[in-house]
Amino acid sequence: MAGGSGTRLWPLSRRGEPKQLLRMIDGRSLLQLAFDRVRAVVAPGNILVCAGAAYADEVASQLPALRPENLLGEPVGRDSLNAVIWPAAVLVRRDPEAVVAVVTADQIIEPVETFADRLTTAFEVAEADDRALVTFGIVPTGPHTGYGYLHRGRAVEGLTDVARIVEFKEKPDAGLAARYVDSGEYWWNAGMFVWRAATLLGQVRVLLPESHERITELAAHPERLAEIYPGLLKTSVDFAVMEPVSRGRTDAHVIGVALAARWADVGSFADLHAELDKDDDGNVRQGAVVASGTTGCLLVNADPERSVLAVTGLHDMAVVRTATATLVCPLSDSQRVKALVGEVKERYGAELA
Amino acid sequence: MAGGSGTRLWPLSRRGEPKQLLRMIDGRSLLQLAFDRVRAVVAPGNILVCAGAAYADEVASQLPALRPENLLGEPVGRDSLNAVIWPAAVLVRRDPEAVVAVVTADQIIEPVETFADRLTTAFEVAEADDRALVTFGIVPTGPHTGYGYLHRGRAVEGLTDVARIVEFKEKPDAGLAARYVDSGEYWWNAGMFVWRAATLLGQVRVLLPESHERITELAAHPERLAEIYPGLLKTSVDFAVMEPVSRGRTDAHVIGVALAARWADVGSFADLHAELDKDDDGNVRQGAVVASGTTGCLLVNADPERSVLAVTGLHDMAVVRTATATLVCPLSDSQRVKALVGEVKERYGAELA
Repeated sequence: MAGGSGTRLWPLSRRGEPKQLLRMIDGRSLLQLAFDRVRAVVAPGNILVCAGAAYADEVASQLPALRPENLLGEPVGRDSLNAVIWPAAVLVRRDPEAVVAVVTADQIIEPVETFADRLTTAFEVAEADDRALVTFGIVPTGPHTGYGYLHRGRAVEGLTDVARIVEFKEKPDAGLAARYVDSGEYWWNAGMFVWRAATLLGQVRVLLPESHERITELAAHPERLAEIYPGLLKTSVDFAVMEPVSRGRTDAHVIGVALAARWADVGSFADLHAELDKDDDGNVRQGAVVASGTTGCLLVNADPERSVLAVTGLHDMAVVRTATATLVCPLSDSQRVKALVGEVKERYGAELA
Repeated sequence: MAGGSGTRLWPLSRRGEPKQLLRMIDGRSLLQLAFDRVRAVVAPGNILVCAGAAYADEVASQLPALRPENLLGEPVGRDSLNAVIWPAAVLVRRDPEAVVAVVTADQIIEPVETFADRLTTAFEVAEADDRALVTFGIVPTGPHTGYGYLHRGRAVEGLTDVARIVEFKEKPDAGLAARYVDSGEYWWNAGMFVWRAATLLGQVRVLLPESHERITELAAHPERLAEIYPGLLKTSVDFAVMEPVSRGRTDAHVIGVALAARWADVGSFADLHAELDKDDDGNVRQGAVVASGTTGCLLVNADPERSVLAVTGLHDMAVVRTATATLVCPLSDSQRVKALVGEVKERYGAELA
């Protein structure tokens, strides 16, 4: 899954250049890092990417090992339900026994070996159990309020750190998050899954019969993409499938595979600053940048024209220059960027936002 | 005098666009404001501008009332001595009795009426006394350490607030500045003068005979500008002429005319912020700018291409975007911009500085 636009990293990410396609980690994009993570377990020819159709050329250019028929371009975003059932419907036609891992493209997960090991375990669970929807639970490192939580039940015998999931919990407040973590019974919801394509589609047929019918029609008639896709129900796979299944609404069940890895969202400039290499003053510098008396800043000059970004006396700030915008904000305020982009769009038009 | 490059306002001011030519005060440049101030007393046809030859086209474009023969373009900067004796040498050939006011182009002086009134007084002094070098003394509003001071002696009879100047003082430290102001005997040195052209040149012939010879040669042979000008002694008129004369080194004397006006240097972003109209949050905004949670800032988007400057959570900062640079610095640090430009030049080349 490589959808989304990532307005909180504006102006680095824009409508034409979403977050997961920015070559921001040592010159590589989060999509490229995600592709490499999966290649540790899955042959490149078996990897599909589902992304916005507008970004298809850039995805293909970043991933030369991706087969053209494995790039699914959404004409419009229709949330995560459709980003997982469309590939499932395509794959089940190629191989009715297909087992599919759905992984996100906008996080950093390290070490890759740990991820590969747990992905292998998840595949084993899904191959052995055709009623299992497998999800990954990140072992919490603290009472984070920005993630959903998975409440786990009894362990699955014979496997290490694999358990039934009995409830999906929304993002909690600080007190509740602390109780979750203290109890030892919760993982963070990673939004990554493994299942037999046929198992997922069977659940969707029960829970959302119309979605099942339309996506099956689309897989049989890919030429009708522009007609069918915009009419699909826009909803999340967690809300529409995983939660009802975890509550016993169908004959399937949810299995959680623990993933004890560093799992970092790169959803804001503060996150990006945390991820990238810093100089002795704690500054991340990219592009033509001059700084004096400046500490703890993210300084990015991504303007393709010849230019310079010059700062003095700044602390803990993000300063980003692109061809069409300059953004300045404290790193601690970087969640406010999204609202700022809204104002840019309103006042100066969508082409600058 | 319209020379100088104003690196402390970089990147608004650059080698190709020095400070005094920026249309920054309600769309008018400091040069245009200075020209208008002088027009209150002097016919436009009698106004000369001495500026860098590289800016001659821009000066002519900004001042349509300036006669082409009254624009003196310096091929290289040779400090204030030559910027005052060259026009004097030119004018004395046109009229041996010429009385000349030398005014700067990079300050704001208000009200214009007060300036015009004192300029008229200064002309009267210089016309009546062919041994007088007249200078303007700004009545201090506080113990400023950024200006030179004029120590005044006995008053000139029959004129209001006009006195002999007995000493030129360098920029003082805070304690000395406070003593100067408390004594009531000091004015700020405005660096503006009135004199008979022949009187000034007579003093230069005594104090700096070689400079006198060369500038006289240049006035007689303007076609030799490129040959003569670069070889002129580079020094200030204060150091080379006014100080020695005030100390009695020659048969002339220095007369000070008090100017009780607001006299504002616009030498830094802090100065510019102070001069310009602010919104309810104390922000100066120019060009396409979006700001939230931001107070007391100077926000200038001078990029001629379509772009936006977006800031959030900033206080008392200068943020400036141009076609080739973005600058961010606290207004209180704006004197550090000059050093920053030096580093830009060193690392990325003169065309970005």
